[in-house]
Amino acid sequence: MSLPETLRDRRQKLANLCPHPVILWSGQSHARNFPHNTYPFRASSHFLYFAGLPIENAAIRLASGKLELFIDESSPDSALWHGEMPLRSEIAEAIGADAAFPLSELATKTDSAATIAVQDSSTYTEQTQLLHREIHPQTAPTGIDLDLASAIVALRLAHDAGAIAELRKASEVTVAAHSAGMTATATAKRESDIRAAMESAIMAANMACSYQSIVTVHGEVLHNNRYHHVLNSGDLLLADVGAETETGWAGDVTRTWPVSGRFSHSQREIYDIVLAAHDTCIANVKPGVEYQDIHLLACRTIASGLEDIGILKGKIDDLVDMDAHALFFPHGVGHLLGLDVHDMEDLGDLAGYAAGRVRSDRFGLCYLRLNRPLQAGMLVTIEPGFYQVPAILEDRERRDRYKDVVNWERLAQFADVRGIRIEDDVLVTDTDCEVLTVALPTDPDLIEQKLAA
Amino acid sequence: MSLPETLRDRRQKLANLCPHPVILWSGQSHARNFPHNTYPFRASSHFLYFAGLPIENAAIRLASGKLELFIDESSPDSALWHGEMPLRSEIAEAIGADAAFPLSELATKTDSAATIAVQDSSTYTEQTQLLHREIHPQTAPTGIDLDLASAIVALRLAHDAGAIAELRKASEVTVAAHSAGMTATATAKRESDIRAAMESAIMAANMACSYQSIVTVHGEVLHNNRYHHVLNSGDLLLADVGAETETGWAGDVTRTWPVSGRFSHSQREIYDIVLAAHDTCIANVKPGVEYQDIHLLACRTIASGLEDIGILKGKIDDLVDMDAHALFFPHGVGHLLGLDVHDMEDLGDLAGYAAGRVRSDRFGLCYLRLNRPLQAGMLVTIEPGFYQVPAILEDRERRDRYKDVVNWERLAQFADVRGIRIEDDVLVTDTDCEVLTVALPTDPDLIEQKLAA
Repeated sequence: MSLPETLRDRRQKLANLCPHPVILWSGQSHARNFPHNTYPFRASSHFLYFAGLPIENAAIRLASGKLELFIDESSPDSALWHGEMPLRSEIAEAIGADAAFPLSELATKTDSAATIAVQDSSTYTEQTQLLHREIHPQTAPTGIDLDLASAIVALRLAHDAGAIAELRKASEVTVAAHSAGMTATATAKRESDIRAAMESAIMAANMACSYQSIVTVHGEVLHNNRYHHVLNSGDLLLADVGAETETGWAGDVTRTWPVSGRFSHSQREIYDIVLAAHDTCIANVKPGVEYQDIHLLACRTIASGLEDIGILKGKIDDLVDMDAHALFFPHGVGHLLGLDVHDMEDLGDLAGYAAGRVRSDRFGLCYLRLNRPLQAGMLVTIEPGFYQVPAILEDRERRDRYKDVVNWERLAQFADVRGIRIEDDVLVTDTDCEVLTVALPTDPDLIEQKLAA
Repeated sequence: MSLPETLRDRRQKLANLCPHPVILWSGQSHARNFPHNTYPFRASSHFLYFAGLPIENAAIRLASGKLELFIDESSPDSALWHGEMPLRSEIAEAIGADAAFPLSELATKTDSAATIAVQDSSTYTEQTQLLHREIHPQTAPTGIDLDLASAIVALRLAHDAGAIAELRKASEVTVAAHSAGMTATATAKRESDIRAAMESAIMAANMACSYQSIVTVHGEVLHNNRYHHVLNSGDLLLADVGAETETGWAGDVTRTWPVSGRFSHSQREIYDIVLAAHDTCIANVKPGVEYQDIHLLACRTIASGLEDIGILKGKIDDLVDMDAHALFFPHGVGHLLGLDVHDMEDLGDLAGYAAGRVRSDRFGLCYLRLNRPLQAGMLVTIEPGFYQVPAILEDRERRDRYKDVVNWERLAQFADVRGIRIEDDVLVTDTDCEVLTVALPTDPDLIEQKLAA
């Protein structure tokens, strides 16, 4: 299916779900330290879904399945600095627009239109002015905008063939990046060397990173975006790095490997537990299954493994009921993946949580980003982990609450395991699932072989 | 000199130049496609100059040479996700603050304070609210804010020893990045492969790019931020890539080299002209010289070279007076370099243009970003170029105006020279200048040797 056909199909489905005319803005680039020095432009994901191309400072209007494009022609001065840009008519043809206008025409076509806030202030100020109501990315949509958001969620939850083709490309390059990171480990001196090798593979494929990479020997810091630590031979390296295609589709993979090329005995014991959780979860992903049950399966597998090796004490069900697993696995087992690495998280939990469901206040469930029955076409991550987070394990109240179920002396024997996570991108199929990132090994023997190669 | 000593020196000098209390905000990270997926944080350059560390969501107050730090302690939840952060007291000690407070205290200390707008909307909204006047990065400072901006310009124009030490680090890694790019050329297939090799060298050194890299076989597109072209053996590759240290100091270098490893005869003829302009300009950089005269020297050297090889016809002075050089060299010969790659360009031309001077409306001068007498401690780029920009050369009005001075048939013999630029970072010393990036060859023979190695 060509891009115009894919887009036509998406907007026809949207028209069936949402009776309002819809205007979506692509957004504008954001100044870094001064106005002309901008961050790389990233178009709004909702725009990308229906417009297909990462065009800056454009808008589309969708009504009754028709697509109108609004964009200004580039100026002669712009041609000097930025080169000849495609004409409005050429862009319109590439995306199958039914009509195309200068941006100024948009003001005459905003009646009753629903929209979704874009992240940059120039654009959401413009949205607010043209639609005569407050549009802000930090404010949940209401009224017709909520109707639109709900319709878009319904569409974007289950990926179509065009989306899956892009997501496969993102997966492929993400796998290559991790592979490059493993290869670079033998000669790397610092975290930054491995990060460089990984992101270099993504850049060489002419893609961007779908989020700020985590490449660290301190895997217990869950969102660690610094890369300054020296690599020591006893360290585990945790790398959470993903590629994003030119039209915005994301990969998101984590691997954890030993800097020395060989897992220590204690590292391998914990690694095997996390891998068991990873494998068991994936074996159970299929349409109709509740994602929260997948999460709880990971919790039980981890609790059971930790009980086996003597870190936890008690019955598995009791341990999970009291969130003892969350001392070591405090986050959710994964999330939606698509145009955003946490797909549609700009809409809060509207995409992640089925209607009527809200976040739990349990320590072991409150960070779960997805709580819906799985359906064919969904892409989710499966990413169990084990971490020794000082902020959790040294918290006096928690140590007291869990004093009877944790063997702290035994735990001390696993001091060289600060953080392990194993994450893959899993597409729900009609019958079960397909791991898009399966080409990258998770088996510790295969990882050691790869590191030795 | 330690960081606290450098910062104390800077704020004492500021106190001598600016009688007002000063509040500078560091800024906040900006959402990319959803709020939790941010671009890498870049602190405001003015904050970095006086606070020395890239701390997010902080402010400093400078009054009578004293430094007060305002920042909130990180939350327990933040410790889970982002790791243990330094305490307020630890940051205060690292930068030599005289006192430190939570951010909420700032509201009580804003009387008569001058500031400079930060780029992100959360922060400039906060600045506007706390100072009870409109603060916006697109609005030129007035009143006490203009007093402050002028004082900061006076300080930041001439780099101190602490700044120069950082700028040398940025230069060194920038040179390494270009060297890696040349090395990668023999096996590279696309522009993106060379970009990846270059940015990888910057990342490995745990630095960021000081601006979006230009790595292109279409050097005639002056600000080309795409990397998708396939490399062909007859192409010249233009790479304009710079590293930025962790505390924000920038490098900015351009080299142009042949994809095949050997310049064609026509490429080398033009390259030698651009190199002559580069070398002559640098030979003339010293305190007291007008930077515009350096620019005009580049213009004359290029016009003269193009006359020698028969592309231009006429007397050199006449050609430059009528901006004939600008057909091929339409931009300025360089700019200030420091914490920003176009240093202090957030203040418009306040830093670049001496008091009372404004941009020329001449085609050959209007893009000149720096028009001041040079002074010791200034870091400037010297970056002459030659480009065949279709938007210029195919413009009917220009072809008519310059019909008697351009030999279009001769020009056609240089069709394989789309864009050449040679750029170095040049520090004005007490007597003349020092090229910080001198380790990277500009000589075409040396470049060919490097490509063959």
